Amino acid sequence: MPAHAPRPYSVEIPLRWSDMDAYGHVNNVQYLRLLEEARVEGFHAWFGEHDPVLGRGVLVARSEIEYHLPLEYRHAPVVVDMWVSRIGGASYDLDYVIRDPERVGERTYAVATSTMVGFDFADGQPRRIDDRERAVLDQLLGDPVALRRRR
Amino acid sequence: MPAHAPRPYSVEIPLRWSDMDAYGHVNNVQYLRLLEEARVEGFHAWFGEHDPVLGRGVLVARSEIEYHLPLEYRHAPVVVDMWVSRIGGASYDLDYVIRDPERVGERTYAVATSTMVGFDFADGQPRRIDDRERAVLDQLLGDPVALRRRR
Amino acid sequence: MPAHAPRPYSVEIPLRWSDMDAYGHVNNVQYLRLLEEARVEGFHAWFGEHDPVLGRGVLVARSEIEYHLPLEYRHAPVVVDMWVSRIGGASYDLDYVIRDPERVGERTYAVATSTMVGFDFADGQPRRIDDRERAVLDQLLGDPVALRRRR
Amino acid sequence: MPAHAPRPYSVEIPLRWSDMDAYGHVNNVQYLRLLEEARVEGFHAWFGEHDPVLGRGVLVARSEIEYHLPLEYRHAPVVVDMWVSRIGGASYDLDYVIRDPERVGERTYAVATSTMVGFDFADGQPRRIDDRERAVLDQLLGDPVALRRRR
Repeated sequence: MPAHAPRPYSVEIPLRWSDMDAYGHVNNVQYLRLLEEARVEGFHAWFGEHDPVLGRGVLVARSEIEYHLPLEYRHAPVVVDMWVSRIGGASYDLDYVIRDPERVGERTYAVATSTMVGFDFADGQPRRIDDRERAVLDQLLGDPVALRRRR
Repeated sequence: MPAHAPRPYSVEIPLRWSDMDAYGHVNNVQYLRLLEEARVEGFHAWFGEHDPVLGRGVLVARSEIEYHLPLEYRHAPVVVDMWVSRIGGASYDLDYVIRDPERVGERTYAVATSTMVGFDFADGQPRRIDDRERAVLDQLLGDPVALRRRR
Repeated sequence: MPAHAPRPYSVEIPLRWSDMDAYGHVNNVQYLRLLEEARVEGFHAWFGEHDPVLGRGVLVARSEIEYHLPLEYRHAPVVVDMWVSRIGGASYDLDYVIRDPERVGERTYAVATSTMVGFDFADGQPRRIDDRERAVLDQLLGDPVALRRRR
Repeated sequence: MPAHAPRPYSVEIPLRWSDMDAYGHVNNVQYLRLLEEARVEGFHAWFGEHDPVLGRGVLVARSEIEYHLPLEYRHAPVVVDMWVSRIGGASYDLDYVIRDPERVGERTYAVATSTMVGFDFADGQPRRIDDRERAVLDQLLGDPVALRRRR
């Protein structure tokens, strides 16, 4: 468990052969797709029937990712560690590490962060983070992921 | 031409219906796919036969994107403005605006930046930006895109 | 204009670099994606505001495709010829040829057919092809595409 | 185990949320993507280190799919049953059923068949199916999947 992520939620995400591009590595855009899948799994585990992905309720307002190592397709999944690094009135930040499962190795392929904004799809308006969400997110709060390349 | 982009290269990128996700908007990850396509077009125009995408030679080391407006599929393409915001010894930054063509409207859907790192695919090693590349990139140099949400 | 397609509708579909897979060719599944895009363009041209793709109204019930030549990414689009090869009470067949634009060459990359079934998304039920649709489809009627490999 | 598939190989394929399109169902083209993933898993299990997908050696020459039921994204995977329905000198046919795992339900979402052609990527030529492949494929031989809609 990395020092910058005191309470990560870890989920295994299987790769698809089609995640590779013509260079023979998992395409850099597909790393974000893996994070999307991790979020879908995480939201389901964290929020259950109130799941804001399937039931809607949050939008991605910002994403930032640093690529540390190339990733080749293999039958073993990757692990995505996820935690909350900031909770605001109408948004929060999710931080991520994409890495090997312990049984496979110790490589970190990417670190990332994304800002999630509360959104009410019924009336098409931004919304505040409610108390139920906040209670869940508080349990996942940790330090921001270390981003090396930001200028 | 935005103030932050003195010499952008502009390319029209057609949307695909499949860029939409179950929310009925162009999926946030697909915005990065649109930027990839813009880069492929740009590199072809800028570097010609020395095109580092098809001929290889650069990797995406970092991406950052802010989503300003949701984008629904339509038959009109989007425009991606691209320019260079930093040139280093072994890497450079490309900045982007995704917007409507003038004939369609004035909306900006996203702004982004990515760090490109020189890479020699033949020997699998990072490489320096060479003089030929630098001469091309110098012509595209502008101020960094304004990122509103970075903390 | 191929003999099997007396009244094709032809549309240029730009490739994306990401259509290639790790073999360095346009992935076989992506050929179907190109046909989907061609259909979206065709339906828009044929049906206008009554467009059954965006406004809903048809489902793909069946697809069959034969791959004739590998396709490498290039900046030139492909052309998809499309026509109607059968009109039934509640469904119709669209046939397709994916080929080079005349200015590029004479290669045919794939031939395909798909069965479209009328569907009313409002009440979740199959529906009959209505007179307005039938009048449009009649104008596009041609012989079935020649499928070489079907046993 | 369906009557038409005496010796299927069954593999669970997780869905991705992004497999859905703007209609809120798994996109019809993505069904082929699921089959591709099933094939990658199957080839790995059947051929091991001689895996013709990763090591190359076969191309998809033809695909045919019938859609039986719409599939909504859910956290449970689908099962793909796969078997060999024909072995020729230079090609063979794989047949597929996409269905619910027994623990989830009894729905069949699609049936499909694809023709795989031996190909030597080293010299860019078609090749014959060799004895080692044939011995593996013989163990997977069953009746062709029932296709209802073919005219």
